[in-house]
Amino acid sequence: MKTENFDSSQQQWVEENHADTLLLRYPLKNRLFKGNSRFQTVEVVETEGYGRMLLNDGLVMISERDEFVYHEMISHVPIFVHPKPKQILVIGGGDGGTAREVLKHSSVEHCHMVEIDAMVVNACKEWIPQTAVGMQQDQKFSLDIADAIDYVATTEKRYDIILVDSTDPIGPAVPLFGPEFYANVHRILNYDGIVVAQGESPFYAAEQQHALLKTMGEQFPLIAIYNYNNLTYPGGLWSFAIASKQHHPIDNLDTNRILASGIDFSWYNADIHRASFVLPQFMLNNLNGLITI
Amino acid sequence: MKTENFDSSQQQWVEENHADTLLLRYPLKNRLFKGNSRFQTVEVVETEGYGRMLLNDGLVMISERDEFVYHEMISHVPIFVHPKPKQILVIGGGDGGTAREVLKHSSVEHCHMVEIDAMVVNACKEWIPQTAVGMQQDQKFSLDIADAIDYVATTEKRYDIILVDSTDPIGPAVPLFGPEFYANVHRILNYDGIVVAQGESPFYAAEQQHALLKTMGEQFPLIAIYNYNNLTYPGGLWSFAIASKQHHPIDNLDTNRILASGIDFSWYNADIHRASFVLPQFMLNNLNGLITI
Repeated sequence: MKTENFDSSQQQWVEENHADTLLLRYPLKNRLFKGNSRFQTVEVVETEGYGRMLLNDGLVMISERDEFVYHEMISHVPIFVHPKPKQILVIGGGDGGTAREVLKHSSVEHCHMVEIDAMVVNACKEWIPQTAVGMQQDQKFSLDIADAIDYVATTEKRYDIILVDSTDPIGPAVPLFGPEFYANVHRILNYDGIVVAQGESPFYAAEQQHALLKTMGEQFPLIAIYNYNNLTYPGGLWSFAIASKQHHPIDNLDTNRILASGIDFSWYNADIHRASFVLPQFMLNNLNGLITI
Repeated sequence: MKTENFDSSQQQWVEENHADTLLLRYPLKNRLFKGNSRFQTVEVVETEGYGRMLLNDGLVMISERDEFVYHEMISHVPIFVHPKPKQILVIGGGDGGTAREVLKHSSVEHCHMVEIDAMVVNACKEWIPQTAVGMQQDQKFSLDIADAIDYVATTEKRYDIILVDSTDPIGPAVPLFGPEFYANVHRILNYDGIVVAQGESPFYAAEQQHALLKTMGEQFPLIAIYNYNNLTYPGGLWSFAIASKQHHPIDNLDTNRILASGIDFSWYNADIHRASFVLPQFMLNNLNGLITI
């Protein structure tokens, strides 16, 4: 393909600048939405090759083509670790994809979302129904537009699983990676609760991964990190950090329960669940001592 | 970072156009080499964030920052599967990285490289010593500049392991994915030989993966595919296909032998070896029946 199709004067693309060392440019079919909330710029575009894409502050959050990986792995891993997961809290995740996956589980009694930015929710409800279906009217679902930092510090509700479906630790999301937040997460989890957090890139954010596991480890006995692949994040390899009060993330995995769930997975399966916790050598070297399973 | 650093009039970058749906642009510190061989355009550049990079026909082949993943996984997996790997053939791999990893094994008696393009070899010897060190003068190493298609059809040499370190199935590399090539690979492998081939992207090349495993399966009883992560290939997730006459790719893995090798791995370890064969659900669905292990 000739590069003149990428005509800068037309700007029929979106681009993400990663660390001044890589530019990822996605040609577009259409621009669907752009707005500025109090927190960030929110855009929804229709790309040529990745379906509809949500970007916050110019960073790709989700694309229709590959969001199944992130959303299956943030949700089904902890839900199948926990023997009876009933009350789920999703922090962030305003596209709805995480809630969509959570609500596939008949054992789940309620999925409560706390998202800071109504603009993300509304833009996705209008333009990315593929993920926003997770936020549709349902007695098992509720959504609060609120600051999760305050929410976890003050709520009297208790949860079995908390999913921190956050952006990168820049700007408003920074406290979501910090010790005060995790003290409160620990407080509002039940005695055998589990938290999973968006855990950045092993290649690009080794220090942040180290710091996050250390912070979680100050509160929780069982700490681990598991990998997955996202086409539209720089470098592709990305992680989730998991902290558990009681249930081991791998050891008692009930394969029959996974098969009996009736859920049609595109990435997740019992073997992938276990294998995702197997880390390449450089990650083991970096996180030595912080992984406690 | 402001996009004016990516000034198109200066062209201080290289860019890879992936399927007209993603452009990956790497800003440069310097351009080191550019030439046209009979087969392809060969470039070596110094990038801002990925070290030195080799590109063939504008496609990123290797970068210093992440080449360890590819080269560890193409070599150490089959070498540790085979109980006594002595004679190794590397097809392609003109950067030298695969040979470098192969020669770390004291049990290996000889590593023979057959690369079609002398320009790749010479450019890397001059500009990317990090990988080209694998091709330095050594009694355990020999290099032929030749067409591997012809070589495998005519040689009387026999090998324990063949590593097909090839570019994508476009142009000259197409026959390296075909039935005649694999019939000859089978012919020149010893009775318990193993072949590993660069296996493309599960997301972007599902059909090619299906076709490759089918082709290999016409010759070999044990067929599998294993995944790894490359920062500078589109989407990050990539695969190797493995075909074995006798030795199972996972079952008899000798962890002690891996530890005793004394090799300092940055990606590979025994658990990663096993886990890399665990495939996400969509890959299992696509390759159903072709994986025989």
